[in-house]
Amino acid sequence: MHFDLGEAIEVLERTPGTLAYFLTGLSDGWLLCDEGEGTWNVTQVIEHLIEGEKTNWIPRLQILLREGENAVFTPFVRLPSEDSSHDRPIRQKLSEFKALRLENIARLKTLIHTDAQLELTGSHPAFGTVKARELLSTWVVHDFTHLAQIARVMAKRYGEDVGPWTAYLGILKNR
Amino acid sequence: MHFDLGEAIEVLERTPGTLAYFLTGLSDGWLLCDEGEGTWNVTQVIEHLIEGEKTNWIPRLQILLREGENAVFTPFVRLPSEDSSHDRPIRQKLSEFKALRLENIARLKTLIHTDAQLELTGSHPAFGTVKARELLSTWVVHDFTHLAQIARVMAKRYGEDVGPWTAYLGILKNR
Repeated sequence: MHFDLGEAIEVLERTPGTLAYFLTGLSDGWLLCDEGEGTWNVTQVIEHLIEGEKTNWIPRLQILLREGENAVFTPFVRLPSEDSSHDRPIRQKLSEFKALRLENIARLKTLIHTDAQLELTGSHPAFGTVKARELLSTWVVHDFTHLAQIARVMAKRYGEDVGPWTAYLGILKNR
Repeated sequence: MHFDLGEAIEVLERTPGTLAYFLTGLSDGWLLCDEGEGTWNVTQVIEHLIEGEKTNWIPRLQILLREGENAVFTPFVRLPSEDSSHDRPIRQKLSEFKALRLENIARLKTLIHTDAQLELTGSHPAFGTVKARELLSTWVVHDFTHLAQIARVMAKRYGEDVGPWTAYLGILKNR
């Protein structure tokens, strides 16, 4: 086990700025490409990250700390809500993600004061008993998942362009 | 086919700053973890990217433009050279990567003036005939590969910490 609250926050606080640096100013070709029918483009990944800040990580931690296993977490809607404004420029979405994330990190710091709190348990709709520490570790790994996904989605745009080098580039085969 | 020199440069010029934003100031726990025996940590990935700037992409493009298929590219040494100073802080390595990358993008712009040049061919030690366009596309996808790798290596550090959520986190199973 490696979870450490300070180290987790190091990652959580860097993700929005990292994505903003990487994605701001890119051509639509990069921002709107996807991995085919039913897959997300980069812009949709950012919408999903925003949704997580609003409804998943901190809201679930609050339920866990307040209710323990007496209240089951609301299932996380993986897809952005229908009424989210899809036409806003990605720059604005990245800013929203950053603002929400910084707010949530501030909340996290007011919610968790002791290592003992990390062992407190809540009730996940699919998994049953889960620990605060597991929820927070998952928040971090979820960031990594979507950083890697963004790199993979963009890489596949050049899947044919690389010619024979495709043999050395495993990222083009992953999903 | 999607390759466009301007769009490729958009990515190439963002990668070093993206990595610097993400990695600078992280604890050693994040920078020195790996995926097990014989795999790279984040710091070694940055050393590999530096090596590519020095010996792979632009040097190969120059050989291709100058010699065509008369000269075979020098095989790319994937591992950083033994004498590279492993003890420099990652901040310095990231700066070196950025400086080399900016130099190489400047060189790229002086080397390629026409779309016709992108169809010129060189000789790869394993693949035989390759096009300039394929080499440049591979440079871009290589960046994505290592961005995704860094996210994956760091994610796996929390592989056990996420508890039952491991079922939803495919990144923990990839290699």
